[in-house]
Amino acid sequence: MARERRGGGRRGKSTRQGGGIEQLPWQQVKNSYPKFELLNPDQMDQLHDTSMRILSEAGIRVMGDNVMDLFEEAGAIVDRDTQTIRMDESIVTEALKTVPSEFTLRARNAAKRITLGGDNMTFGLVAGPPNVHDRINGRRQGNYTDYCNFIKLAHHFNAINLIGNQVMAPMEMPANNRHLDTYRANLTYSDLSFHCTAIGRGRAMDGINMMAITRGQSVDEMRDDPGVITIISVNSPRLFDDAMGDGLIAMAEHGQPVTVTPFTLMGAMTPVTLPAALAQQNAEALFGVVLTQLVNPGAPVMYGSFTSNVDMRSGAPAFGTPENAKANIVGGQLARRYGIPYRTSNTNASNAVDLQAAYETMMSTWGAVLGGANIVYHAAGWLEGGLTASYEKFIMDVEIIQNMIEFLKPMKFDTDELGLDAIKSVPTGGHFFGAEHTMARYETAFYKPMLSDWQNYENWEAAGAKDALERATELWQQALRDYEAPPMDPAIVEELDAYVARRKEEIGSDEP
Amino acid sequence: MARERRGGGRRGKSTRQGGGIEQLPWQQVKNSYPKFELLNPDQMDQLHDTSMRILSEAGIRVMGDNVMDLFEEAGAIVDRDTQTIRMDESIVTEALKTVPSEFTLRARNAAKRITLGGDNMTFGLVAGPPNVHDRINGRRQGNYTDYCNFIKLAHHFNAINLIGNQVMAPMEMPANNRHLDTYRANLTYSDLSFHCTAIGRGRAMDGINMMAITRGQSVDEMRDDPGVITIISVNSPRLFDDAMGDGLIAMAEHGQPVTVTPFTLMGAMTPVTLPAALAQQNAEALFGVVLTQLVNPGAPVMYGSFTSNVDMRSGAPAFGTPENAKANIVGGQLARRYGIPYRTSNTNASNAVDLQAAYETMMSTWGAVLGGANIVYHAAGWLEGGLTASYEKFIMDVEIIQNMIEFLKPMKFDTDELGLDAIKSVPTGGHFFGAEHTMARYETAFYKPMLSDWQNYENWEAAGAKDALERATELWQQALRDYEAPPMDPAIVEELDAYVARRKEEIGSDEP
Repeated sequence: MARERRGGGRRGKSTRQGGGIEQLPWQQVKNSYPKFELLNPDQMDQLHDTSMRILSEAGIRVMGDNVMDLFEEAGAIVDRDTQTIRMDESIVTEALKTVPSEFTLRARNAAKRITLGGDNMTFGLVAGPPNVHDRINGRRQGNYTDYCNFIKLAHHFNAINLIGNQVMAPMEMPANNRHLDTYRANLTYSDLSFHCTAIGRGRAMDGINMMAITRGQSVDEMRDDPGVITIISVNSPRLFDDAMGDGLIAMAEHGQPVTVTPFTLMGAMTPVTLPAALAQQNAEALFGVVLTQLVNPGAPVMYGSFTSNVDMRSGAPAFGTPENAKANIVGGQLARRYGIPYRTSNTNASNAVDLQAAYETMMSTWGAVLGGANIVYHAAGWLEGGLTASYEKFIMDVEIIQNMIEFLKPMKFDTDELGLDAIKSVPTGGHFFGAEHTMARYETAFYKPMLSDWQNYENWEAAGAKDALERATELWQQALRDYEAPPMDPAIVEELDAYVARRKEEIGSDEP
Repeated sequence: MARERRGGGRRGKSTRQGGGIEQLPWQQVKNSYPKFELLNPDQMDQLHDTSMRILSEAGIRVMGDNVMDLFEEAGAIVDRDTQTIRMDESIVTEALKTVPSEFTLRARNAAKRITLGGDNMTFGLVAGPPNVHDRINGRRQGNYTDYCNFIKLAHHFNAINLIGNQVMAPMEMPANNRHLDTYRANLTYSDLSFHCTAIGRGRAMDGINMMAITRGQSVDEMRDDPGVITIISVNSPRLFDDAMGDGLIAMAEHGQPVTVTPFTLMGAMTPVTLPAALAQQNAEALFGVVLTQLVNPGAPVMYGSFTSNVDMRSGAPAFGTPENAKANIVGGQLARRYGIPYRTSNTNASNAVDLQAAYETMMSTWGAVLGGANIVYHAAGWLEGGLTASYEKFIMDVEIIQNMIEFLKPMKFDTDELGLDAIKSVPTGGHFFGAEHTMARYETAFYKPMLSDWQNYENWEAAGAKDALERATELWQQALRDYEAPPMDPAIVEELDAYVARRKEEIGSDEP
């Protein structure tokens, strides 16, 4: 179609305003569009019923007596020999009564308080990879320098609402106490809330204590105004180990939120069928949700979904697949059914920041948006199925998050916006560039991208023919140059450092 | 989160089965999920009312007496001096009564008949660029050899349901008769239906005649079983030139479908606001739809949406933007309101097959899916805002289409799929790889991608560390090697060639 073309010659060079990278303001976006109902009510009932039968007939195995005690007290059937807990639906129903449908989370900057639940949508930094990659220095083991860089980037880019659990593992540090250093980096290089590590009670308590120090509060004062959150992964199928149980209990006791996320890769940790995977995910997630309420009725908790498939030729995990997009959507239907805030992820399985990384990311991110996710975990920087944190991927993902934020903004809709007079004022075949209606709005009318380049081919070529990957490298480098640390009272820094030093002393080389 | 990682060592080398590229079968997918209602009913009414006022108060300028005669006869107010047609809503309402809510389209292969309308979704080849690009030979002018290659690729890859209007301009051929050569290539290198060029009556009639020859039918016999379709672009704002009017009339007279697509880039051809752009798009599209029914009540017609924005810094078109995604969705709401089959597009403004091309493509494609598009035009191969047809982009887009087809497949949902027994049969912390439930289904359980590579990093590196762009190059090269032309009766080839020769004689160097 001849007319469906870019006009020639009209575009100048794209310039960034001021010194810094132009970006959207810090915000928490609302996803107020109708939610996507992929399964019908009857199918949702069947999913629910199957989950309840998994809980009552198959049960969940746990590894801690503390967890067994709590469930026994609540009326569940606890088999101490096999460490298996079976329970009726009534126990789930009772626990769901006290689950808050939304709660807030904040670090030291109260202006960046986020609400989890309802229509609120937030985006978290990649968490967990052992490796890190950028286009200049290549792929390498996670380390503390890169760790800090990612926290700085998360602070610099407004699209990031919260920090996940260790953006990467700083491998050169002792495994048993490096969480203290990463917490300190989170708290000083950014003013965002973060996910603490809840493998065991010690790491959870350190996160809570250090956030309390940073906010100048006691742990008690933080009880009704949470500052940290954590992910409790279920060892699917149907296994909660004791470190997870202990971490969950510590968080819930102190009023800090927990996200219960079964690790349900279809074909490996669940049957190969989506309904079965979702039923199993639902049973496992609800088990953890119930546990939080047995520990502390009213404790904030999130419903986590991480269902994707494996490559049945190799057994390797696959992400950003059509099945993963469906699961992200149905996960949201389930969480809404129970009135629990919903966490899902932005994932992909590509080994490079390439076309595959981009389209897989978009499959899972659209699934998260349509599913009404309250947290999109790993929203920026995740590569290689979670084995690498990538600088360039981070930049692309920030652009994608910004696109989604703009997409989610409801259309302004009134007589002026309908613009009948403006339409009548321009002659047929004319243009609206100079129209009064245009001039009054053009500066803010459209989303201005950070990474996308809309120059025509000739100008783009003359400017070095840089593709989006090269431009992403320039952007993270510029962001690190432009980064400014959020100021912190030196007394608080001192207190944090003293806490870290004391805890390292206490922990020694043993696990906390 | 430590568990959210790809397992090591489990994956072998990914292999393609048989000799050819593994792909989904040829199909027409149904989009039976609930449609996304971005605007509420009151907003939809306001849009409609504004469109009606555009038609009655501002009017549409046309350049042909034939069009003015038809509207005058229908009761519109025709100002012959300014060539402006104004009409009441009643004329629109009357015309909409005879618009078919769906129709079919087929070329010589009746097995590849497609239905346009309802829940049916189809994907068309890129159309219109003056340039072509691949990673081996670089960017060059459109030419007949590359033209034929793209038709072969469209035939080879089942994801493509129909061919657009000239995948690229074969610039070395005379502008006034090259449509005959491109039609011939469409008809012989593929067995798909295609968009003929309807700039003027002659090119439209050539498309209809040549399709009739290929089907072994008369033009009259094709009247109730259309074989070609066309796009009529409106010169927004509010201008229909005479070549478009003549083309539309020729198609409608012969019962061949027309898609009326206003060229509404916000800020240039419409006001900068989305409601105004959509109201104007709607007025212009409905004007063309009405015209088809005045020519031939019951003639098949589609509602086209091409609303995106421009970069207000340069005036350059932008595609795959958040605004474009919203417009793709609301375009579908409008088309459904009037019961007209819906066409939108997969677009992007990137100058390279890069991350930007991928995520912009996904923004517009998800908009098309959520909008319930019946045709996604330019679904594979469009680059540079439509200035270049790209081989590698074609391959990525086929992968994206396949992902969407899989996403749109309703989840199989029954007791077996819910898999309670399978879940109970695997011990806690175990795996489902060898389970009977898995073994019975694993070969077809998940979508197997064509372009994505799910090997682990080590295997991927050992295999040459090819990113998706490099793999895309290999795939189109392999497809061209594997391509087999659909057989055609030599008598029909002879008749086609005779038609082309005769018409070239008739046309000479003048416009048809």
